Amino acid sequence: MSSDPENTDIWSVDARTGGRVERVGSVTTAQELRAVVRAAASTGPQLQAAGLAGRARFLRTAADRLEEDAEEIVALADRETALGESRLRAEMARTTFQLRFMAEVAEDGAWLDATIDHADPAAAPAPRPDVRRSQVPLGPVAVFAASNFPLAFSVAGGDTASALAAGCPVIVKAHPGHPATSQRCLVALREAATRSGLSAHVVGMVHGLAAGLELVRDPLVRAVGFTGSTVGGRALFDAAAARADPIPFFGELGSVNPLVVTPIAALERAGAIGAGLAASFTLGGGQFCTKPGLVLVPAGADGDRLRAALAASVAPLPAPVMLTSGIRQAFVAGLEARMALPGVSVVARGVGDDAASPRVMFTKAMDIIDEERLALLLEEDFGPVVIVVEYADEAELTAVLSLVPGSLTGTVHSGSNEHGPDSMAHRVAVVLAARSGRVVWNGYPTGVAVTWAMHHGGPYPSSTSTATSVGAAAIRRWTRTVCWQDAPAASLPAELQEDNPLGVPRRINGKLVVSD
Amino acid sequence: MSSDPENTDIWSVDARTGGRVERVGSVTTAQELRAVVRAAASTGPQLQAAGLAGRARFLRTAADRLEEDAEEIVALADRETALGESRLRAEMARTTFQLRFMAEVAEDGAWLDATIDHADPAAAPAPRPDVRRSQVPLGPVAVFAASNFPLAFSVAGGDTASALAAGCPVIVKAHPGHPATSQRCLVALREAATRSGLSAHVVGMVHGLAAGLELVRDPLVRAVGFTGSTVGGRALFDAAAARADPIPFFGELGSVNPLVVTPIAALERAGAIGAGLAASFTLGGGQFCTKPGLVLVPAGADGDRLRAALAASVAPLPAPVMLTSGIRQAFVAGLEARMALPGVSVVARGVGDDAASPRVMFTKAMDIIDEERLALLLEEDFGPVVIVVEYADEAELTAVLSLVPGSLTGTVHSGSNEHGPDSMAHRVAVVLAARSGRVVWNGYPTGVAVTWAMHHGGPYPSSTSTATSVGAAAIRRWTRTVCWQDAPAASLPAELQEDNPLGVPRRINGKLVVSD
Repeated sequence: MSSDPENTDIWSVDARTGGRVERVGSVTTAQELRAVVRAAASTGPQLQAAGLAGRARFLRTAADRLEEDAEEIVALADRETALGESRLRAEMARTTFQLRFMAEVAEDGAWLDATIDHADPAAAPAPRPDVRRSQVPLGPVAVFAASNFPLAFSVAGGDTASALAAGCPVIVKAHPGHPATSQRCLVALREAATRSGLSAHVVGMVHGLAAGLELVRDPLVRAVGFTGSTVGGRALFDAAAARADPIPFFGELGSVNPLVVTPIAALERAGAIGAGLAASFTLGGGQFCTKPGLVLVPAGADGDRLRAALAASVAPLPAPVMLTSGIRQAFVAGLEARMALPGVSVVARGVGDDAASPRVMFTKAMDIIDEERLALLLEEDFGPVVIVVEYADEAELTAVLSLVPGSLTGTVHSGSNEHGPDSMAHRVAVVLAARSGRVVWNGYPTGVAVTWAMHHGGPYPSSTSTATSVGAAAIRRWTRTVCWQDAPAASLPAELQEDNPLGVPRRINGKLVVSD
Repeated sequence: MSSDPENTDIWSVDARTGGRVERVGSVTTAQELRAVVRAAASTGPQLQAAGLAGRARFLRTAADRLEEDAEEIVALADRETALGESRLRAEMARTTFQLRFMAEVAEDGAWLDATIDHADPAAAPAPRPDVRRSQVPLGPVAVFAASNFPLAFSVAGGDTASALAAGCPVIVKAHPGHPATSQRCLVALREAATRSGLSAHVVGMVHGLAAGLELVRDPLVRAVGFTGSTVGGRALFDAAAARADPIPFFGELGSVNPLVVTPIAALERAGAIGAGLAASFTLGGGQFCTKPGLVLVPAGADGDRLRAALAASVAPLPAPVMLTSGIRQAFVAGLEARMALPGVSVVARGVGDDAASPRVMFTKAMDIIDEERLALLLEEDFGPVVIVVEYADEAELTAVLSLVPGSLTGTVHSGSNEHGPDSMAHRVAVVLAARSGRVVWNGYPTGVAVTWAMHHGGPYPSSTSTATSVGAAAIRRWTRTVCWQDAPAASLPAELQEDNPLGVPRRINGKLVVSD
């Protein structure tokens, strides 16, 4: 919210050249922000009146509308992020799938948790009235778009889709790395809204760091969704908690995503795991929140083979063009800080002498346990780097894992017959489950399926809440409960009316009924 | 955590005489606190291993064990709170019911939200792995006991029952108003634990203000449940949010619980409503979080009749013995501050000249709208006082309601034929639902049924979260999600195993299945 007109332009920058391509708009002023939030808030009643079916129709129309412009949006996003058109085409497919999936989730109605207890004058321990509860939308939601998913975690991404599905207007804080893509997606969403009989203001957008902070502080904003760095996310979390009326802050911050290779797995598949790891930690330039950043391998010949395979796979890889110059700088600074640590060596790097070249670093478990400074290795460095940690035995492995901050994911690679409660792989999985939100067996954590069962979140700092930002349960973040005591039928929401006109699953007098 | 031995004694005080009866213990030191938390935390694995059935058995045993000592505990609680034995017998019945109900909720297993998506190489938009999710306990939970429910919201109350049901060890911060009752309930819970094959340390207890704050800051504590004042609750909320790793704080703070009487309701039932209100706002000495503290009545003859009936019902009521001398002082100070406001008059008081005598105050809606100082009337004064606000028309009524802070409940009294979307009663209910968690029709908010559908929570400051502290959904507060990707069968939790050995409701490949 600068008053210097020189500094208020928002430019679309070509990620490959660093050059400004077009002026997209200007930093949102405090006055403009209030107007955007008010306009969004005013659409709350119509979003709620649209009901599950109306909101589902809107989300499906939004998916259709994005597909109409898909090639153009993908080209813009590629220019602004350098992620490559094929990846971005897949991300577009994921984004439209997500919108349609959220429509299905909304209509399914299980998220309403509709529950009816009929009046019972004979109830224990006391006579009870008729009580019925379900979920209502929280109100306007602020969504902070991510740098690394210009489509699937941005303007028309999962936070927006789930908030709209719940009946909440959305105000997006655009990411400065892809403002033109953001603008284009905003237009598509708004056209879809009007095509669906809703106001275009069901989605608004603001630009600029200060506007983001003001958005979190705005009295009309009732919740925040955030995907980004630990430092930025924590500052906004603190602002949300410091409000006169604190609001929920659903943040996804940094995650190191430990991956453990058991001795038997290393014995059986050292080469394959090394190659798989190389592909996973360099995917999208290593700019994934689920990038495996810390790999624990057993000491000895099998671990050495794994490391050699990893190094061989990394050697021919070029440095990626990173999302923004700021992200590149932070990544390179992170590399340098890690390389300067005692006992840390670089065992492989990609081709060429680019400072952001993919990197494999190496240290020993005992060094991490003994040397406090090495705790830095347990934090995310956003970009193509992986730390290989050699453990001598299971005790060392467990000791290192106990130092790893909360993560989105934890992965274990086990031997083909290594399972059951008495196996090391099982014990590792139990430790990983205590410190992460998704435990992956014999795979790689990059790639998050949008399904009913997916959970994308984990202990702090990987999340600031216990909620998920991906999958069906993401809709629950944007709701609160209201219960109705002895209400006349005509004043009950549809899902609580006796004849269940929406056909949603309900619990009636304690019994769960799927179709009634 | 005073070092002055003079000030470290915890005394059980007779609420009626103000005299010290017995020394219950001493203020918990920092060192003792760490030991209590560590001991509780160490029982997490056994609580989890006990499974749904084992934890349910423990909760039922706890209810049985409390019943063995019921008369003694009721007598102690009456001595410490002056709430009266008949009320406390009912509260004991509610407490044991709550423990058994939570056992039923735990075993039902719907709270696990067990969800299975089988692997599908043909899935859109991308092939998907096998993904399964359910809920795991958060870890040790701090529970701050309430002054006004020495049984149902204290050591063996709803927070404790729901946390144990979820698999979380509990450390209770005892309320200084009833330490002997607390100690007695702790012993009962711990004996029930050992009878059930669990460690007595599944529940711990600490005393003292400083110990409470340290408990919220303790690294091992993973969540907090709190029932109490807005000032105290906010201080602890802030401490939870300021941690290096913020933890969820489920606080129930102050609530004014507006109650609206429509003109038709006043016409039809002025006398009955006046009498009903008097009973509700003086119940338990007015020391209910759901006490109706603000009553909106129409201007004119019917409103006047209602006020007269209310005054007549209050006139013969004596001042209650309040829970503690501190609560009494705060209540009386609150009365004085309100009486000093411009345009506020006292229209009725109970019998006798006690400063804490029940009080009915009166003002006009326009005064509240025009005079900022009158915002104090919209805040809770914990004790037997109600503010009657006269509104001239629906616009005035709505304007006042829009100024009321978030409440646990909102009540509307409507005419016998006043319903349907076009009625004033319906419009009032919509406004109340936007600002509260439970909308009561033609009743009184005091009295919260422990059922599947109950919701006890509301917008800030009535709650610091979107969760409920009463009813089946209370268990969800103490859990987070873990999902398992491509896990071998033997490493899956029981509720996610293919053959569903626990028989819990599940969603499989998108379809909800109640018994499979």
